[in-house]
Amino acid sequence: MSIERYETNPKLSRVVVHNGTAYLSGLTADDKTVGTKEQTAQVLAKADQLFATVGTDRTKVLLAHIYLRDIADWDAMNEAWITWLDGAAAPARATVAATLGLPEIAVEIQFTAAI
Amino acid sequence: MSIERYETNPKLSRVVVHNGTAYLSGLTADDKTVGTKEQTAQVLAKADQLFATVGTDRTKVLLAHIYLRDIADWDAMNEAWITWLDGAAAPARATVAATLGLPEIAVEIQFTAAI
Amino acid sequence: MSIERYETNPKLSRVVVHNGTAYLSGLTADDKTVGTKEQTAQVLAKADQLFATVGTDRTKVLLAHIYLRDIADWDAMNEAWITWLDGAAAPARATVAATLGLPEIAVEIQFTAAI
Repeated sequence: MSIERYETNPKLSRVVVHNGTAYLSGLTADDKTVGTKEQTAQVLAKADQLFATVGTDRTKVLLAHIYLRDIADWDAMNEAWITWLDGAAAPARATVAATLGLPEIAVEIQFTAAI
Repeated sequence: MSIERYETNPKLSRVVVHNGTAYLSGLTADDKTVGTKEQTAQVLAKADQLFATVGTDRTKVLLAHIYLRDIADWDAMNEAWITWLDGAAAPARATVAATLGLPEIAVEIQFTAAI
Repeated sequence: MSIERYETNPKLSRVVVHNGTAYLSGLTADDKTVGTKEQTAQVLAKADQLFATVGTDRTKVLLAHIYLRDIADWDAMNEAWITWLDGAAAPARATVAATLGLPEIAVEIQFTAAI
């Protein structure tokens, strides 16, 4: 089966597609000066763009690994998350807090989606 | 290919099935007053129930992401884990410690399983 | 569909293959006395061996979950990572820092690869 890669740089591809499944790299917000809710909304908008690139959308997400900078931001992340889902069928999800790539990153999400 | 979701709420589905693979949300114990070994056993019993719901079982787990509150609880988690496997073929596994959703949560496990 | 397991012990299998996809356990370096770049190179060499065992290789990696002991070692990990890829098509990737299984472990990588 073929493997398709999108937005590839020397370290990673933003999306890799194989066997009807899309594996996304961990996404973070472009504007990291804002709070967790706003950064989450940015991450989710970026995910929408990448999903569209490979012919899928937010209703076909299978699994999300959500990494927060601070577990206390759980509710702020969830506000943006629920707004984004907007009643669409929710994926499986696991959320933990960890040290992210830069101190100003509040949230990183790694998605797996069906095509 | 169809996507099936089970035990869905506005934020997540406990299980999402696609293309012969079941993606589970991160599972935690219901009774969080007990130790890591006991919480792990609860998580694994909950996994058994969800596996049964989608027509699979513990012998078909492909991958487990295990998150501990304290890496020092590795052995306690493993005691419950090995008891649960009971000689069944073990899945791939990665275990790290991270900050979990509530201070009283000792362990969270995110499973991927074949159907 | 069949499930194949490789290098299985009572706790885990180093690789589990199902439906054209290989799920690897989190890999760490055998020699943990060296730095992050060197430990990363060891992890990647170990991955190469496991990929060969199941009939795949580094050009078919779909997703890597990279766990660092210290997020400040991002660049050191990336040096070994980019050398390893050697221009091959890069997988999707998510990198966070967490507490790993032993204090001397600098990096752990959990791979998902196509066969």
